Amino acid sequence: MSVKDTEKAYYAYVKKMMNFNEAIALAEWDMRTGAPKKGIRQRSEVVVTLADEGFRRSTSRTMKSYIETLTDPSVQDELSEVTRRMVEKSKKTYEHRVTIPAEEYKAFIMLQSEAQSVWEEAKAKSDFSLLRPYLEKMVALKRAFIGYWGIDKNKYDALLDLYEPGMTVETLDHVFAALRKGIIPLVQAVASSGAKPKGDFLSVRIPAEKQRAFCLYLLREIGYDFEAGRLDETEHPFETALNPGDVRVTTNYRENDFITAVLGTIHEGGHAIYEQNISRELVGTPLCAGTSMGIHESQSLFFENFVGRSRGFWERHYGELRKLANGQLDAVSLDDFYRAINKSHPSLIRIYADELTYPLHIMVRYDIEKALFDGDLEVKDLPGVWNEKMKEYLGMIPASDREGVLQDIHWPAGDFGYFPSYALGYVYAAQFRAAMLRDIPNFEDRLRSDGLDSITSWLSRHIHQYGSLKKPLELLKNATGEGPNPIYLLNYLKEKYSAIYRLKA
Amino acid sequence: MSVKDTEKAYYAYVKKMMNFNEAIALAEWDMRTGAPKKGIRQRSEVVVTLADEGFRRSTSRTMKSYIETLTDPSVQDELSEVTRRMVEKSKKTYEHRVTIPAEEYKAFIMLQSEAQSVWEEAKAKSDFSLLRPYLEKMVALKRAFIGYWGIDKNKYDALLDLYEPGMTVETLDHVFAALRKGIIPLVQAVASSGAKPKGDFLSVRIPAEKQRAFCLYLLREIGYDFEAGRLDETEHPFETALNPGDVRVTTNYRENDFITAVLGTIHEGGHAIYEQNISRELVGTPLCAGTSMGIHESQSLFFENFVGRSRGFWERHYGELRKLANGQLDAVSLDDFYRAINKSHPSLIRIYADELTYPLHIMVRYDIEKALFDGDLEVKDLPGVWNEKMKEYLGMIPASDREGVLQDIHWPAGDFGYFPSYALGYVYAAQFRAAMLRDIPNFEDRLRSDGLDSITSWLSRHIHQYGSLKKPLELLKNATGEGPNPIYLLNYLKEKYSAIYRLKA
Repeated sequence: MSVKDTEKAYYAYVKKMMNFNEAIALAEWDMRTGAPKKGIRQRSEVVVTLADEGFRRSTSRTMKSYIETLTDPSVQDELSEVTRRMVEKSKKTYEHRVTIPAEEYKAFIMLQSEAQSVWEEAKAKSDFSLLRPYLEKMVALKRAFIGYWGIDKNKYDALLDLYEPGMTVETLDHVFAALRKGIIPLVQAVASSGAKPKGDFLSVRIPAEKQRAFCLYLLREIGYDFEAGRLDETEHPFETALNPGDVRVTTNYRENDFITAVLGTIHEGGHAIYEQNISRELVGTPLCAGTSMGIHESQSLFFENFVGRSRGFWERHYGELRKLANGQLDAVSLDDFYRAINKSHPSLIRIYADELTYPLHIMVRYDIEKALFDGDLEVKDLPGVWNEKMKEYLGMIPASDREGVLQDIHWPAGDFGYFPSYALGYVYAAQFRAAMLRDIPNFEDRLRSDGLDSITSWLSRHIHQYGSLKKPLELLKNATGEGPNPIYLLNYLKEKYSAIYRLKA
Repeated sequence: MSVKDTEKAYYAYVKKMMNFNEAIALAEWDMRTGAPKKGIRQRSEVVVTLADEGFRRSTSRTMKSYIETLTDPSVQDELSEVTRRMVEKSKKTYEHRVTIPAEEYKAFIMLQSEAQSVWEEAKAKSDFSLLRPYLEKMVALKRAFIGYWGIDKNKYDALLDLYEPGMTVETLDHVFAALRKGIIPLVQAVASSGAKPKGDFLSVRIPAEKQRAFCLYLLREIGYDFEAGRLDETEHPFETALNPGDVRVTTNYRENDFITAVLGTIHEGGHAIYEQNISRELVGTPLCAGTSMGIHESQSLFFENFVGRSRGFWERHYGELRKLANGQLDAVSLDDFYRAINKSHPSLIRIYADELTYPLHIMVRYDIEKALFDGDLEVKDLPGVWNEKMKEYLGMIPASDREGVLQDIHWPAGDFGYFPSYALGYVYAAQFRAAMLRDIPNFEDRLRSDGLDSITSWLSRHIHQYGSLKKPLELLKNATGEGPNPIYLLNYLKEKYSAIYRLKA
């Protein structure tokens, strides 16, 4: 077979795998948005069948031979950039999977599902000992996998790389140290400012169907394309990209807490706009997806915080919100509303944290994960070290493990190395914003009056269109001229919180 | 491998195929209930990938060897009834598919999709000549397939058998002749009775969300299980069974025509209750589905007509409907309402036909299909023969092919042999009702006061639970003591329409 023929056959092979993935994503969306409960067990078996099929192909002899042919140095000139990058991704997946003994891989998959359901119980009972044996097996398996991959130092780097290709402890240590140094004094200044923004009006009652109408309106306003997506309800909101023409968002309406649905929808909308704007040329390839968890999060946070928590945006939309609230917000000034949705105070729970203290929650988890894989921390010591770290970063200790080490699903799900992406997302988002301000200096005016077209189009041009064609650090460098640099986030936070809390310079 | 091991491996193999089918059914449900339009093209490719996978397995060497081992006469005693029937179905599918040259099979699949989209245009323009070349190819391929299956006389029987296993022209000729003989005088008597039931109140405006609430209420009342299903909106209503724990119905609300949504929902509910009540032991096998199109239709028609168009049912629910109509039906008596929803008059369009004239529409199509495959009718002559048959059976000739030969999607979809199932469904349903009346003589009282528990449970016991474990005629015989017998439908129609139109005996 000629190289061109091999390339063509490889594309067709990969396209089938992507089609299986799309079917899985649809089944999962369905299970989380209203599939009848009596069909769930059987539906899960459908997902397993499809996933097995994909796994089999990703590690097949056929795949191996495609990879061998298409990574041969002598043929590189004949291949497009897209093909080269696709093959690089296929090769990475192939090698990650075939080096792990099948039995251990299977044990890990089983453990993921068991540990998540045990976690629910452990969290409900606030009893870490229930989860401990599962986490111990999970960590032992993860450590073994890293060994199979031939890595014997900087082991945690191998996990970071799964979610944020190219990211290392060396870089993160630097980024997080700077963030910590900038954020902690700011948190203290906020606390000692004595200012207490009002916020009780955020719990006025707004019926779900009115919240839904407003969320639909806002999604349209930020540039989400409803011909390529839809909004549904779910327990734990998420975004899912079936293909760039079908990128769905979900939200959860609580009648006495409209702002959670509103900002949550904008957040998921940010993820979705990224996927909707990926070049259609990449459909059917593994490059047709956001390039990393961190870059993905940068887009959702960009929309949630720089748009959805900005004063300009609400100057434009507060009138609509007031209508929706049926008089209940008429006495609340725009300024009070803006301050309320940007209130900052340390909390125990990551997902309820505000913009300012959120990165500290991530650092707690980062320090722990690093110590689990490159240090001598053991699973049994997690609750203790969690509480120490919370004291160190946020000045508070949870009264129970439910509000402490058991709060997140990531570890029971086997996702070690994922958390740092959230903080990196903030850092990247602020860097993108700073770069964008050079091209669009009247950013706030646009939010206030012209809408988001120029903003979204900047993001599409520099980020979205590429999907995974460019790796995260390459994308960042091209768009902003530098590597991860926390100064932009710190500057943004200082400026914003100094104004809101009237801090002295 | 021992027979038991082969049996086990065969079950696992088939289970995977059923899982692919479930993923396809979900994708199709999704495309018809709100999938964003920009993602549809790519979603169709997902369906093709999954269908290919299923096709490949159904005709694989592995499947062949399972069938050979498990149909060996010497091992039959070791196999359960379920296994024997499964293998019989697998064998039938295998033989149907492998005897057709792959190229022709593929051409047929392509043609199905092309012809359906050409049909839409041809119907819109009322221009049969656009569709004609596609139908000619379709019929030529179908004739060739019948040849590959080794059939050279009674060819149409081979097509009937695809939808209604065991059904033959010989039986249908007898059934349809009797129906015709009974129905035509009744239609004439209705026409000459001079009675004109009122019906303008059926077009009062009821908002979609109120219609939806009423449809949800009625589905619950007839025994549809919402923990194993859901109700959504679509353009052309349908029911789809993903598995017995997830059987979905859809409907379409038109604000000035509530009765279409109400009776349509009950109809789809009847299909769904059949699937929801299939024994859970059959999940993961090809027997986990209604046994034939005719038996399926018997269940939807049973609920639509014998329940949803009965006086007893509306004695129970008319009060709810009046509330929903917000005063607009307060002056309409139950009796007028009952007569309105049972009004009969010949029409050109099958899907708008009433209970009495519906079978005549089927006979038009049956005569034509029979002549296409066992007679000398050619596709070019379809419009002419259509009009002749309409005149013969219904006394009217369509003014255009849009309202004539182009009205249905079945032929462009390649479904020759399907139509008779609709009329058989009526015949079966009336037979089941007659048999049920022997066990539950106070049928109408139950509808009026006690609800449908005993009725649904009778249907489940005699029909639903078996899925496809029993073939249609076997099921009918077991439940009613005889083969297809149109007398029960004729008696029911005579009794009902004589009362409504006050016909003389």
